Formats: sequence, structure tokens, C-alpha cells
Amino acid sequence: MTRPPVPTVDFRRYFPILTWARTYDRDTASADILAAVIVTIMLIPQSLAYALLAGLPAEMGLYASILPLVAYAVFGTSRALAVGPVAVISLMTAAAIGNLGLSDPAQIALAAGTLAFMSGAMLLAFGLLRLGALANFLSHPVIAGFITASGLLIATSQLKHIFGVEAHGHTLIEILGSLFAHLDQANAITLWMGMVTTGFLFWVRKGLKPMLLAQGLGPRLADVLTKAGPVAAVIATTLLAWGLDLNAEGVAIVGEVPMGLPPLTLPSFSPTLWSQLFLSALLISIIGFVESVSVAQTLAAKKRQRIEPDQELIGLGASNVAAAVSGGYPVTGGFARSVVNFDAGAETPAAGAFTAIGILLAALLLTPLLYFLPKATLAATIIVAVLSLVDFSILKKAWGYSSVDFIAVAATIALTLGFGVETGVSAGVLISIALHLYKTSRPHVAEVGLVPGTQHFRNILRHKVETRPHLVTLRVDESLYFANARFLEDYVLNRVTCDEPIRHVVLMFAAVNEVDMSALETLEELNRRLREMGISLHLSEVKGPVMDRLKRSHFPDDLTGRVFLAQYDAWAALCDDRQAEDPSVAAQ
Amino acid sequence: MTRPPVPTVDFRRYFPILTWARTYDRDTASADILAAVIVTIMLIPQSLAYALLAGLPAEMGLYASILPLVAYAVFGTSRALAVGPVAVISLMTAAAIGNLGLSDPAQIALAAGTLAFMSGAMLLAFGLLRLGALANFLSHPVIAGFITASGLLIATSQLKHIFGVEAHGHTLIEILGSLFAHLDQANAITLWMGMVTTGFLFWVRKGLKPMLLAQGLGPRLADVLTKAGPVAAVIATTLLAWGLDLNAEGVAIVGEVPMGLPPLTLPSFSPTLWSQLFLSALLISIIGFVESVSVAQTLAAKKRQRIEPDQELIGLGASNVAAAVSGGYPVTGGFARSVVNFDAGAETPAAGAFTAIGILLAALLLTPLLYFLPKATLAATIIVAVLSLVDFSILKKAWGYSSVDFIAVAATIALTLGFGVETGVSAGVLISIALHLYKTSRPHVAEVGLVPGTQHFRNILRHKVETRPHLVTLRVDESLYFANARFLEDYVLNRVTCDEPIRHVVLMFAAVNEVDMSALETLEELNRRLREMGISLHLSEVKGPVMDRLKRSHFPDDLTGRVFLAQYDAWAALCDDRQAEDPSVAAQ
Repeated sequence: MTRPPVPTVDFRRYFPILTWARTYDRDTASADILAAVIVTIMLIPQSLAYALLAGLPAEMGLYASILPLVAYAVFGTSRALAVGPVAVISLMTAAAIGNLGLSDPAQIALAAGTLAFMSGAMLLAFGLLRLGALANFLSHPVIAGFITASGLLIATSQLKHIFGVEAHGHTLIEILGSLFAHLDQANAITLWMGMVTTGFLFWVRKGLKPMLLAQGLGPRLADVLTKAGPVAAVIATTLLAWGLDLNAEGVAIVGEVPMGLPPLTLPSFSPTLWSQLFLSALLISIIGFVESVSVAQTLAAKKRQRIEPDQELIGLGASNVAAAVSGGYPVTGGFARSVVNFDAGAETPAAGAFTAIGILLAALLLTPLLYFLPKATLAATIIVAVLSLVDFSILKKAWGYSSVDFIAVAATIALTLGFGVETGVSAGVLISIALHLYKTSRPHVAEVGLVPGTQHFRNILRHKVETRPHLVTLRVDESLYFANARFLEDYVLNRVTCDEPIRHVVLMFAAVNEVDMSALETLEELNRRLREMGISLHLSEVKGPVMDRLKRSHFPDDLTGRVFLAQYDAWAALCDDRQAEDPSVAAQ
Repeated sequence: MTRPPVPTVDFRRYFPILTWARTYDRDTASADILAAVIVTIMLIPQSLAYALLAGLPAEMGLYASILPLVAYAVFGTSRALAVGPVAVISLMTAAAIGNLGLSDPAQIALAAGTLAFMSGAMLLAFGLLRLGALANFLSHPVIAGFITASGLLIATSQLKHIFGVEAHGHTLIEILGSLFAHLDQANAITLWMGMVTTGFLFWVRKGLKPMLLAQGLGPRLADVLTKAGPVAAVIATTLLAWGLDLNAEGVAIVGEVPMGLPPLTLPSFSPTLWSQLFLSALLISIIGFVESVSVAQTLAAKKRQRIEPDQELIGLGASNVAAAVSGGYPVTGGFARSVVNFDAGAETPAAGAFTAIGILLAALLLTPLLYFLPKATLAATIIVAVLSLVDFSILKKAWGYSSVDFIAVAATIALTLGFGVETGVSAGVLISIALHLYKTSRPHVAEVGLVPGTQHFRNILRHKVETRPHLVTLRVDESLYFANARFLEDYVLNRVTCDEPIRHVVLMFAAVNEVDMSALETLEELNRRLREMGISLHLSEVKGPVMDRLKRSHFPDDLTGRVFLAQYDAWAALCDDRQAEDPSVAAQ
């Protein structure tokens, strides 16, 4: 059999587990299990907290951290990515469900599951269509601005739990307004506990590790102890709330979390709900994918591994569908926990499956212990986690680099804070595209001349170069397409109408990577108008693919001048043109 | 006084009439008046017909042909453009008003006037902001597809008047379905008259002029007689309908058209109506501007004149505001009548003002004569006029040139016919932009080598060139921005991971016209990853503006390699690199 077994290869592509599982051994397993234990400890308080952030019952956070992890272990290509509920996606879920105006908890849970299912289906579809490149339309400044603004929104939205009051809203002003309106009902014990916990967690993050290292602990152990900070806070405040019966003093606690396996759930297939959730699901898919893929790529690069973006879409799609059928809500790869997983030595996606077992055990055994867990503690873990995402330095960096990028990042931040996450990120994408089109619609065109003694041509405004009065050479620094075609025509016609002796116009196409049909028609029109003025139009340095394309039209036949391979050939042929009115000039 | 009188210059820019009126003399006036007489004769049936197409009373077509023409004469820059109701804009007006679901004629007229006012205000705003370039986002294939499809829609929508039945709808299927459903109520006399008139007008357009020329008439007179065909049809069928009392036989006639000056009207300022009409007004502004400007540019070029697109926006904006306050509806520059105006010898925009006087006289004196005018006659003039716009050859041309342009034109035609004018043109614009972004998101990257004996570098797949195993040179044929930045990174990493001896990667940036911040971050990342693999990254032939921009960041400092002015310098410096594993190869 000499033919390559093509179907098997394809099959393996969609199931990366078939590749890594074949060489799976005991050493790899023990590395993965150790990593899984650490991630599980970190994920239990996180998954509860993010479920509350999404406006959902705490157990949905646990359920979203079981089956989705198994699905990713089967379909995902990253060896370190830890999937589960994350802050930004939880906030977007809250916004999407808030738009529906539901009050029945069962309806809300159904909507969250449906959102996960739709988002999973979209990711699977994008993956099968190999549309991983879609994520590129979120430019870096837009992502950075969006993450910063949503981190700020999330932290602000958690202040209500620290103060122990009710507050709602999806924009910075709404949240703060609602918070201040209820501030007189603040609960003193909750506020004290929330502030102390927040302070403790900040100290754990910033001060504990250097202290432990200074005391002679190994860096790895110091790291594990640091990551266990939130768990310590959870245990301490739960014991406090239980021992002092703080619930009776008005401290909000998590309350009853059902014990047992995740339920089997089905998403809704109501067309009304689907159309209401469509845009939200799309945004969640894209943002989740971008966040997850950039984490996965960063970690893969450290071990010289590569991830497959198209297969990552399938892995995340499968995870979200798994979340939808097991009582969860939208998930994606989280930054902090993936780094922990990587640092703890995870070798394969099996680490995720072991983490799932850990969370499953927690759901089966530990939920009664969570009854007295104060919500303020969860809020404190969220605040400390997301404030590390807030980074306004992107504004300064963009300002220094280009005004267009600055506008994109500033608008994304302002619109996310002012109008909520969905408006913010949609507007960010549209603004990036609009600004890009605007820039390319006014291409840079340079009039060039010959650098004496060479065959190089340079901008006449920047260099001392030779020119001829009857010959104008314009270098076009942009692909020609519908948005800028007319600009070039106007530019050329304005240039030649003010200068009488011009007989030849050469367009230097070295940087023209494309001529679309609108631009072709404009070039034909330009050729016609210049002919009416007695001026020949020439092209030089046209690239292979562009010339192949132009030859499919009549343009090369109709062209009044010639197409020169090199600009110097054009100069050599035209600089002594006999048609020039003033032969003394042409011969100089 | 040596300072230039700047404010006066600016003032003149906004009032082109101040420039041409100073040299206005009797000769110019008589040329303009002759042109105005011919255009008036052509415009009377047209303006009635287009008002009916827009679903408005016939007199609104006349009113839209009076004050708007005067406004354009004051503010417009084209010396031949004839403004007034046109087919496509009338169809778009019908679609916009149809969306509102109104039945009260007064409300419909108010909505049409409001639409003209909003569209005028938008055009004025675009003009003051100098956004004439906005029109470029309608690519040529989209415009051509849109005009063809709407011509077909308009012709189909007029068949009901030829058959003498009721029919409604905004898509091809709706219109035809509605027509067939009512076909049993067709009126035989109307059908005969409609068919004969349509046949007559087609013959006038195609056969009359050659016949007149063959009989020895001057070409100018033959032309005028040909243009008068619709008027002849109007007079003949009106006399017939009056003489035989065809109305009693079920032939639909125009009926009473109020006699007198255009009324003074005010647009509605209801926020509900404005938000309902917003998108329609925007589309009407853009389509109207594009249609008008392309006619104006074509005619101006014939006389070596230039028009000012930004001032044209102001001229058309003023015309639409004038339409709104004088009982009219949205107007723009029409193709056929502008050509007639130009051919008849119009020298200045004053011809438009004289035409306005002609139409005013018609509104004051002739309206009783229009009472018996059959609607079928007007429908026939529309059908014959718009079928000349239908040109499916754009599909063939686009197919031959590029699949992307073909998709844009085919989708625009299909969506316009299938979902109406507004969906069609909006989708066309979005599809053009999406396809452009998709194309540029997968840039052409060529690996290049030295053409022996020269300093030129060419694609190794297309030419026989020299290369070195430790040196890879990639020519990037596209600006680098967010949508394609990651593609380049993947391309380079894939290229170097499969080839062990590579020590140097040179990116040749001759065709890179922009590096935005996303691309900058990707380049930084690429530099970092290549460094980890022990590979240096170099740039060559970076353009001035791109280098200026890069220097604002840390990237040039962090770059592991160098920035070479010319690719040959990079080759000379790196081709004999001592770091190459195999010195014999490097020295060959």
C-alpha cells in the first residue's frame, strides 16, 4: 500500500487525543495529576465566583468546570490550556441574559445553557469552515482596550457584594449610580470582611511569594502556597460565618448548593430566544476564542509547540456544547489558570480531564461545606483577579505609535465603560475596520526622480534627484481598490493639469499588490482622459500577480504607453523623448 | 494689502454661482435657454412618471423639478448636470415610505418631504465635513449590479400600469406574484395602449434617429425629435383618452393635478419618523450622490472642466432641502437629462434655473391638460428609460477579471432583486468591504532569491535565482495590519521550523505601506520567538513613512538583526555569514 492513509490523517486532525494518548505513560500521568490538583484548588472558588458574576447559581460554575474540560481534552490542541468559566465571558453572559429581562431562575439557567450551546455551535461551524482567521479582525488595541475596560466593569460590579447591598447595571455609570443609591443599606460586617479579604488577597498576590522565597522556601512550593491564597480566604471566612452565624447579622452567604452529579440539560430551541441571543453568542464565541487562543499560543511557544487555531475552534465549540448539556454556561480557556496549569507541569490535555474529576468530587462531596461561604469573599477573589487585567498603559503606547490605533483603543474603552461589553467590543471591531479603510482610501503617492549615478528612484521631496519636465513618475504606495481608486485619478489629473509640458506619466507599481475591478475601470478612465490631453500613460515594476490580472482585461491593449519591467527602463526610454517641446531640456 | 483675501475665497468656494455669474453674457444665456427648453420638454412627463413610481401624487414630481434646480444652480459646480426626480431614487423613496405602512396621502407626502430634508441635511453635513470620498466605498461592481437590478425592479413594478391592475411589493418575487394574482382583472384597452406606447417609445429610441438621419435631417434636429418622443406619446394618448372617454372604460388616468405655485411645506421633526427613515435617507444620499457625481464628472471631462465632489455634496444637499420645503421629494442629478442638457449646449448651471421656470410655467398653466393622461403612458416611458440601465454584461466582465468582484456584483444583483433596493445596496457595500478585508488578510508572501549577475531579487518559484540554506528572504506583498498580522507570523514560523540550518530571516518590506500597532506587536513577538530558536530577524527596503513609524516604538532596538536600505545590502552582508553550519555551502 503506497497511498497515504488520508482519511485516518484527517480523523486524527479532528481528534488530537489520538495523537498524544498513544505515548501516554505513567510519568506523564503523574505530572498531569499534580497539575490537576493545583488547578482544582484554584478553580473551585473561581468557578463559584464567576457563576455569581454571570448572575447564575453558584453550582452552574462547578458544572461548567467538569464536562467542558473533558471535551477539550479530547478535541483541543493546547497541552496547557485550562478551560472553564472566565471573568470576561461571565460578564458577557450576564449582559446577554440581562437583555432578556427574565426573572424566573429556571428560565435564566435555560437561557445561559442555550447561550453556551449557540456559542458552541458557532465555534464548531467556524472550525469546520476553517475560519480561525476571523479572530484577526479583533485588532490588538481593541482587545487590550476591551479587556481593560471589562476588568474595570467587573471589579466595579463586585463592589455591591463587598458593601453588602443590591446594585445592578451593565455600564460603569449604571453600576456606580445603583451602588451609591443603595449605600445607606451597607452592612458593616460584610464591608469589614470584604475589605480585609481583598487586602489579604492583594498581599498574597504581591507580597507573599517574595516573603516565602526570602524565608528559604523553594520557588515551586512558594508558588503553590501563593495560588492557594483564595482557598485559604474561602476556608477562613466560611468558618467565621459559620462560627459567628454571620448570616443572621445580614452577611450574604452562598447558601444551599445542590449536591451530586451535574444534571443532564437541554438548550432551548425557541426561535425567539435564538434570535435574541444570536449577537451575544457570536460575540462570546469570538472573544472567548481570541482570549483562549492567545493564551494557548503563548504557552505553546514556550515549549516550541504549535497549536492549530482551526482545531482550537472545534475544541472550544465542543466544550461549550458540553457545558450546555451538563448544566453549565459559556466557557473558554482562562489566562491565570492556564499559566498555573503550565507552571505546575501539565504535559497533556489529560490534566484537564483530571481537573474535571477533582471538580466532580467537589460537586459530589464538598457543596454542603460551601453553605456558609460569604459572597463578599467570592467578590474579593474576583476583584483581585480582574484588576490585574486592567492596564491603561495601552493608551500611552498607542498614542505614541499612531493616532489611528489610539482612537481605536480609546473608543473601545470609552464605549465598553459607557455602553456595556457588547456595544464596546462590536464598536471596537467596526471602528478598527473603518479606520483601516479610511487610511487606505488616501494612499501615499510620491513623485520620484532618479538618484544621480544609480538606477534608484526616490521621492523628489525627500532626496536630491534628477527629473525631466515632460515626464512625471508617481510611485503609488498602496494597493488600488474601490476605496482609493478615484483618489489616484484625481491626484494624477490635478498633477498634470497644472503643468503644461508633461507628455508622459509613469505610474510605478512596485507597492501595488492588487488592482480590483473598480481600480481597473478608474485606470481605464485615466488612460482615456490623459490621451485626450495628449499625454501617454505608462506603468513600471508591475508585480507578477497584478500583471496576470490586468492581462485578463483590455487595459494593457488600450494603454497609450508601455509597461516597463523596471523603473529605470522607463526612464531610459522616456527621458530623451523626441516629443518633448523643448529639446534642450530633454537633452540636459 | 499683500495678504490674500482668504474669507472671500472660501465664500466663493461655497457659492460657485459667484464665479460663473460674473462672466455671464447674452450668448451664454441664449445657449442656456435653448438647452432649458429641450430639457423642460423631456422633464415634464419624466417628473410625473417618477412621482407615480415613488407612490406619490403626480404634482410632487413637478414640484421636485422647480426649486431644487434653482438651489443647484446656486451651489452646484457642474455646468451640465440636470437635477430632479430620477428612477432609482424614486424607487428607493417608494421602498422607504412603504416600510412605514402609511395609508393617509397627506402623511405619505409629509414622509416623502421629510425624507428629502433628512437626505439633504446629511448631504450638506458630508459636504461641510468634506467627506466626498465616502462615495468611494460603493465599488464599481456594486454600483453596476445595483443599477441593473433596480432597473429591472422598476420596469417590473410598472407592468401593473400596463396591465391596468393593482400590484404591490418591493422584491421581484413579490411584484411578479402580486401581478399574476391580479392578472384576471387586466383591462384590455389599457393593455393595448400600454403595449403600443412601449413599442413606439422603443422604436423612437432605437429606430427613429437613424431614419431621420437617412432622410437628410441634421443630427441635432434628429436628436431633439427623438427626445420629444415621450411628449408625443403623452399628447397622443391623452387626446385619445379624452376623445374616447377611456376612463369610463376602466383606463386609469392621472386625474386632477392641482394648478399653481409649489406649496410651502415643512418636514416633520418627529423623532420616531426620523429614526424610521434614517437608514433610508442615508442610502438615498449616498446612491444619489454617487449617481450624480459620476454623471457630472463624465460631462465635465468632455470639456476639460473639473467638478468639486465636496461642493457637489453641498449642491445636492441644498437641492434636497429645497425639495423638502416646496412640496417635492428626494432628487439628484439624472443621467439621461444631463446628457440632453449637455448636448443641447448648456453652458452654465443657469440652464437649470431656466428649466425650473419652464416647469413652473407647466405647473401654473398645463396641469388641467394632464387630467386625461393615461398612467399606462407614464409607465411606458419609465420602462423604456430604465431598461437601458439594465446591463448584465457586468457579470461577464467581473467573472473574467476576478472572482471576488464577481461575487460582489452577483450578490448585489441577487439581493436587490430578492430583498429590495435597501437590502441590496447595503449588502453590496458590506460584501465589498468584507471581501477586501478577506483578500488582504491572506497576503501574498514570496520567498525570493538573487537573479544571478544583478542586484534584483525575484520569487524562487517563478525564476531561476540564487539562494543560501542559512538565509531566507521573504517578500511581503501587502501592508501589515490587524487582519493579516498573525498570518505573517504563522507563515514565517512554519517556514523556519521545517528547515534546520536557517540562521537569518530577512523580511523585504518594499510593498509594505503600513505597519499598524497589531502588526507591530506581532513583529515583536516574531522577533522574540525567532531569537529563542537562534535565528536573527532582519528587515530590508523599509519605506520612509513606515520606518518613521517603527522608530516610535522599541522594535528597531529589540530587533535581533539589522534594517537594510536595499535587499542587495542584506544579501551582501548575510550570504557569507560565518555562523552558517556548513561553510562550504555559504561560500559556494
